[in-house]
Amino acid sequence: MPFLNFNSKKTIQIWDGVSGAFFHSDQLMFGYLTITKDTVVPEHQHHHEQWTHMIEGKFEFTINGDTQILLPGMVAHIPSNTPHSAKAITECKVIDCFFPVREDFVALEEK
Amino acid sequence: MPFLNFNSKKTIQIWDGVSGAFFHSDQLMFGYLTITKDTVVPEHQHHHEQWTHMIEGKFEFTINGDTQILLPGMVAHIPSNTPHSAKAITECKVIDCFFPVREDFVALEEK
Repeated sequence: MPFLNFNSKKTIQIWDGVSGAFFHSDQLMFGYLTITKDTVVPEHQHHHEQWTHMIEGKFEFTINGDTQILLPGMVAHIPSNTPHSAKAITECKVIDCFFPVREDFVALEEK
Repeated sequence: MPFLNFNSKKTIQIWDGVSGAFFHSDQLMFGYLTITKDTVVPEHQHHHEQWTHMIEGKFEFTINGDTQILLPGMVAHIPSNTPHSAKAITECKVIDCFFPVREDFVALEEK
């Protein structure tokens, strides 16, 4: 399946206010996510390395106590097992990448 | 370095008509690339798994003999060691992900 279309993939909700579509290979997972304005993603961590690419909007991101406002073209890089949280200042569209694949999201897709 | 800004990163040219900015961790590399209209990327392959995410434009992509026109929201997923080529029907902006890191691009950045 070399070509994938996020526009027509079923979306899932992964947090309150955070939903989107995911595809994954054996190693990597990508999510195209919409985060509604004022959504707060509480601090959490996971062993998966994460990259959050800002496509649209203004997202306040905190990684290991370091806070920054992210705009399009900016990225949050969250190493394995690093606490992070976020707040959507506006509605945001992001592309998240996880390595390895988040099996908890795969399970949500299969529900 | 948890926060990265592709807008202010030095760009490099990786093919005729293809240039952009890269960041990488120990495992993953991301490139924000602009491909000029009518650019042809000749068939090639590499052991790195690649995901090409369409952000803007119209890109004709061929993977292992299978051709498709990609629009925003669509992705080309190129498994390890799979021949692929492409043609930019319009100017395109894409986000490429490589796993593992492409050391040849790191070398270009350091030139």
